[in-house]
Amino acid sequence: MNINPIVILVRPQLPENIGAAARAMSNFGLSELRLVAPREGWPHQRARETASGGEAVIDAAKAFPDFASATADIHLACATTARSRDMEKKVLAPPALVKALRTHKNKKIAFVFGPERTGLENEEIVLCDLLITIPTAPKHSSLNLAQSVAVLSYEWFMQNQKPSTVLKTPQKIAPKGDWQGLFQQLEDYLDQTSYFRVAHKKPLMWQNLQNMLLRANLNPQEVRTLRGMIRALWEKRQT
Amino acid sequence: MNINPIVILVRPQLPENIGAAARAMSNFGLSELRLVAPREGWPHQRARETASGGEAVIDAAKAFPDFASATADIHLACATTARSRDMEKKVLAPPALVKALRTHKNKKIAFVFGPERTGLENEEIVLCDLLITIPTAPKHSSLNLAQSVAVLSYEWFMQNQKPSTVLKTPQKIAPKGDWQGLFQQLEDYLDQTSYFRVAHKKPLMWQNLQNMLLRANLNPQEVRTLRGMIRALWEKRQT
Repeated sequence: MNINPIVILVRPQLPENIGAAARAMSNFGLSELRLVAPREGWPHQRARETASGGEAVIDAAKAFPDFASATADIHLACATTARSRDMEKKVLAPPALVKALRTHKNKKIAFVFGPERTGLENEEIVLCDLLITIPTAPKHSSLNLAQSVAVLSYEWFMQNQKPSTVLKTPQKIAPKGDWQGLFQQLEDYLDQTSYFRVAHKKPLMWQNLQNMLLRANLNPQEVRTLRGMIRALWEKRQT
Repeated sequence: MNINPIVILVRPQLPENIGAAARAMSNFGLSELRLVAPREGWPHQRARETASGGEAVIDAAKAFPDFASATADIHLACATTARSRDMEKKVLAPPALVKALRTHKNKKIAFVFGPERTGLENEEIVLCDLLITIPTAPKHSSLNLAQSVAVLSYEWFMQNQKPSTVLKTPQKIAPKGDWQGLFQQLEDYLDQTSYFRVAHKKPLMWQNLQNMLLRANLNPQEVRTLRGMIRALWEKRQT
């Protein structure tokens, strides 16, 4: 059995939804909840009240100021999204996702959920490794936040009930903090070149570039290698 | 595909839970909701407000005075229950239940849910054909009513979907020629930097670097993007 995934709610608006999400997590054996900038602050009594039985999850939940700090130690981030985002990432339904996660033993995995109305921002999604879409009727695809957490937690729980065969364990993946360092360095350099010369194109170009690099599933040593390569190109003939 | 099941909520207490259940039904393509003696009466505005997108389910929902009248035209009633009831009935988890229902074509099937705190009465359960238990962590088995509806509706929907596990796979991968061009360019640049300064280490370093980049499964456009980035870093402030 894998380590249980961490649930990250990004900018949740209603404390009641946080409580209901915690209850569902607790029902299905998940225990670690993280909150990025919850609108009504944290801790919050109404969240605790709606957890009915999931108070331990609420009491242990930690709030973070931003997405980067909440995901810094995560190896594999799975972002929930209802709409297709035209990103070059794999989009999986929950059964296939949970199955795919079997190959990631001893990794910190996160299920990441966006705010109630708007969902995750593209800049957040780009930093995630996989996208999850819960299939719905085409006419009504907007799931309640806590129900999305429930469905995904349920799927996880069901598939991890019985011991399952592991097909292959890939090497250890770099945590998000390593990638953040690489991306900061690279963006800093590129900003000084003509690469982003058309300013309004930068967001999409930068998003694509990060997506491409993330797809390589690098381990910490490889991230350092890539940073070394980038620095060498940058510093050029300076030796 | 079977006829979609009817959801029957027996003596639901909170209109908000009826609304949330209707929303989940609607998300997963179920449309017929029946209510047995809802505590706050019917119709109810708060139920409609919490349905967010599932209003059609709410507007079509019918209230019945008792269990018998609500189930009179049902062929196969499946009762949800958290506790074992010591009854001589089959108890199935949602995946097995939905699978079992495949043999009941053209029948009116009902998923029956009891009141929030107490669940169904034994006299009601005895009138049902099958029992459903949603597996949970042993320490916290009390599911929210609407989340139970969500999980069961989800399971129904998933099994009656066409099996498309991967919703989207990254597109076509660049041919090796594209990669060779990129690697020639990169090696040429790096040879002019201090990156390969320890000559005997170069072969392994260069192999690792190529492996890392190849793992990203880039498409032809992305290879060009990466080459542009590499060139920008190399040419630096020359614009």
